[in-house]
Amino acid sequence: MKTKYMEIALEEANKAREIDEVPIGCVIVKGNQILSKTHNLRHTTKRAIAHAEILAIDEACKKLGTWYLDGCDIYVTLEPCPMCAGAIMQSRISNVYFGAYDSKGGSYGSNFNINDVKGLNHYPNVEGGILKEKCSNIIKEYFKTKRKNNNESKV
Amino acid sequence: MKTKYMEIALEEANKAREIDEVPIGCVIVKGNQILSKTHNLRHTTKRAIAHAEILAIDEACKKLGTWYLDGCDIYVTLEPCPMCAGAIMQSRISNVYFGAYDSKGGSYGSNFNINDVKGLNHYPNVEGGILKEKCSNIIKEYFKTKRKNNNESKV
Repeated sequence: MKTKYMEIALEEANKAREIDEVPIGCVIVKGNQILSKTHNLRHTTKRAIAHAEILAIDEACKKLGTWYLDGCDIYVTLEPCPMCAGAIMQSRISNVYFGAYDSKGGSYGSNFNINDVKGLNHYPNVEGGILKEKCSNIIKEYFKTKRKNNNESKV
Repeated sequence: MKTKYMEIALEEANKAREIDEVPIGCVIVKGNQILSKTHNLRHTTKRAIAHAEILAIDEACKKLGTWYLDGCDIYVTLEPCPMCAGAIMQSRISNVYFGAYDSKGGSYGSNFNINDVKGLNHYPNVEGGILKEKCSNIIKEYFKTKRKNNNESKV
């Protein structure tokens, strides 16, 4: 089931790539029901907060009619940044499954670990590395193509 | 100027109190222009992300037509939580002024300090304690009244 939902998150990441956004995708599930499927839209929407996870949390809250996402699982292709890990904490999502590790912004152990901060309202279970290669490659390829295009435009 | 804008943030906090939300208010300013004035709306909107700061950042992005809030100042009556401190980092807001310190969720030193996390994209300047007493009292009073009402309803 974990890989099944991560594949759906990867489809979302692909949608982001197609519109020249950093390809990150996300799915929120409760039981067997998909509540939201989203992808990074920061440039398209011109919203600083429009990471895939924030959009997915917002959509899931709307779907359930509550800010309280206890019992939900979030699948995201890249380890969440501090904003998104904070939003996961605020929404009380039970389980976090991410794909690629992010040594720069990753907030579940790769850079710092929000679950090590004492006194917060909630601590989700976290598992990283689901379909790690695929999730990592889509981002690497995106930046490789971007660099190549930038270099060609300078010739 | 700092106290002037924090007074406006306090007016917003008051609006939250009037609708029985935890009274936290926020203002984002660029130069002399107020871009957004918001208050906590988590229960009213049933959105986990609807803290005053997130709403203010979203509104300011809309106003300026960019996700990039470099040169902006954010005033908020309570020290931001990890989600909101993360959103401030993502939006590249230059200066953070907060009122009351929050030993539980405060992410600029009272609990942990996001500015101590290495490798992030951006580190705003931060000053806490602006109109500290007023900002602290409005929250204390809110919870005191809530507890009193809860006890009375149990009689």
